[in-house]
Amino acid sequence: MTRRRRGPDPARLALNCATVRRQWTLPQMIEGCLRHGIGGITPWRDQVAAVGLKQSAALIRDAGLAVAGLCRGGFFPAADQAGRDRAIRDNLAAIDEAATLGAGCLVLVVGGLPPGSKDLAGAREQVAEGIATVLPHARASGVPLAIEPLHPMQCAERACINTLDQALDVCDRVGPGVGVAVDVYHVWWDPNLGRALARAGEERLLGYHLCDWLVPTRDLLNDRGMMGDGVVDLPSIRGQMEANGYAGWAEVEIFSDHWWSQDPDHVLATMKARYLSVC
Amino acid sequence: MTRRRRGPDPARLALNCATVRRQWTLPQMIEGCLRHGIGGITPWRDQVAAVGLKQSAALIRDAGLAVAGLCRGGFFPAADQAGRDRAIRDNLAAIDEAATLGAGCLVLVVGGLPPGSKDLAGAREQVAEGIATVLPHARASGVPLAIEPLHPMQCAERACINTLDQALDVCDRVGPGVGVAVDVYHVWWDPNLGRALARAGEERLLGYHLCDWLVPTRDLLNDRGMMGDGVVDLPSIRGQMEANGYAGWAEVEIFSDHWWSQDPDHVLATMKARYLSVC
Repeated sequence: MTRRRRGPDPARLALNCATVRRQWTLPQMIEGCLRHGIGGITPWRDQVAAVGLKQSAALIRDAGLAVAGLCRGGFFPAADQAGRDRAIRDNLAAIDEAATLGAGCLVLVVGGLPPGSKDLAGAREQVAEGIATVLPHARASGVPLAIEPLHPMQCAERACINTLDQALDVCDRVGPGVGVAVDVYHVWWDPNLGRALARAGEERLLGYHLCDWLVPTRDLLNDRGMMGDGVVDLPSIRGQMEANGYAGWAEVEIFSDHWWSQDPDHVLATMKARYLSVC
Repeated sequence: MTRRRRGPDPARLALNCATVRRQWTLPQMIEGCLRHGIGGITPWRDQVAAVGLKQSAALIRDAGLAVAGLCRGGFFPAADQAGRDRAIRDNLAAIDEAATLGAGCLVLVVGGLPPGSKDLAGAREQVAEGIATVLPHARASGVPLAIEPLHPMQCAERACINTLDQALDVCDRVGPGVGVAVDVYHVWWDPNLGRALARAGEERLLGYHLCDWLVPTRDLLNDRGMMGDGVVDLPSIRGQMEANGYAGWAEVEIFSDHWWSQDPDHVLATMKARYLSVC
């Protein structure tokens, strides 16, 4: 296991709001970040909508927090043209919201197979076309798009882009303004991870998400672990991110029925302590 | 969806004995194959041991069935040298059993991280070294070794070789006598699947396993689907296997709490009907 001499930077810790989404509203999360000395926040669009976009932006700005990213755009593939058009409109709206919030990027969970479809290559083509369609608006709005490759076990239902290399192929195809969000949960197993991070390079490494892979994992979606409770060599991946120039947020995103049932202040205290000790 | 003009060959259907392992003993499975006109069988070592090796070989031979493969060798990584040595001895014994049974190959589920370890690269190195160590005995025994890449969600616990390309890198390193077993469940999501099958080529395509990916999938291990019940484009993958020269068994292997609770004659009848209609 590679242990970097330099520890993780406390000033780079960010809260992805999925981590305490069952316990807190967005205003409570903002207050929680302040209480625990967490400088960055990545809200989800439904959490923003519940408060109102302008009010959310003002609350975060007044709290002095940075918006690491906005979750999420994507879900491009659809069974028919009307569905694809709806996805485009929704992504254009998400770009506007990200711009209003001053988000560092809009995270794209690209979508899986349309219902009833087995055409995986076709779904992947729809994703590339969808991103290309909304990219001019993202560029004009100053919002980088961050493709998040999801674990292959979520290929059918959530994202048919499943490796960093595959995401970078889309980036190469559509041109500047698109990069990747690297979530350790989704990429830790990839034998090509090191080469793909080098291929991405500083310009395209737009986000870094932290949690851990539990053994055993009991659910395909909501059984992610707190950093240190699983088997991912987190210092090694951080080292590779930094070696390729990444100096952005380390964003803790834990989908977990366990952590969603805990006192949210305990969750934030634990994630901060673990970030400093095992990441 | 690609539909090949030529349908699947009824003479190539094989039963992987995991499919009805809760319902039947090996002798009952042999009789079941005869009753349903299934020409190939892949037993598991515990099923063989329960009957006795020579008795199992005789029963299968007398039934006129072919042994498509033997499951399984592998599980090479271990926390200490004694554990690694035990794994080597166990694999040498598995090779002997495969030779006695006249198996077409010994399937390798290579193993994951040793308990407490986060050293994924190290585990992968142990796998390559383990295969290299037992390979001379496999060659001398006439038993091809088939590395089965497992789905990335089983990386930590069962197999740290997770793509066909990664398996082929090991094949390239250790030399002739080792190939791959292609299980649609493990590889269907891989954006590099087509290129990897072409890279493997006829010589190294040693097995082809069938089931389906269910939506939703409720368990990481035991919720595989019957062919046709999921989202995998099976004719397309078969077409790619055949285009690269594969003419071996189509082996149905379904780990499923659902199918393990069904009448096993119903399971075999269903798998044969689905093989002919949707694969």
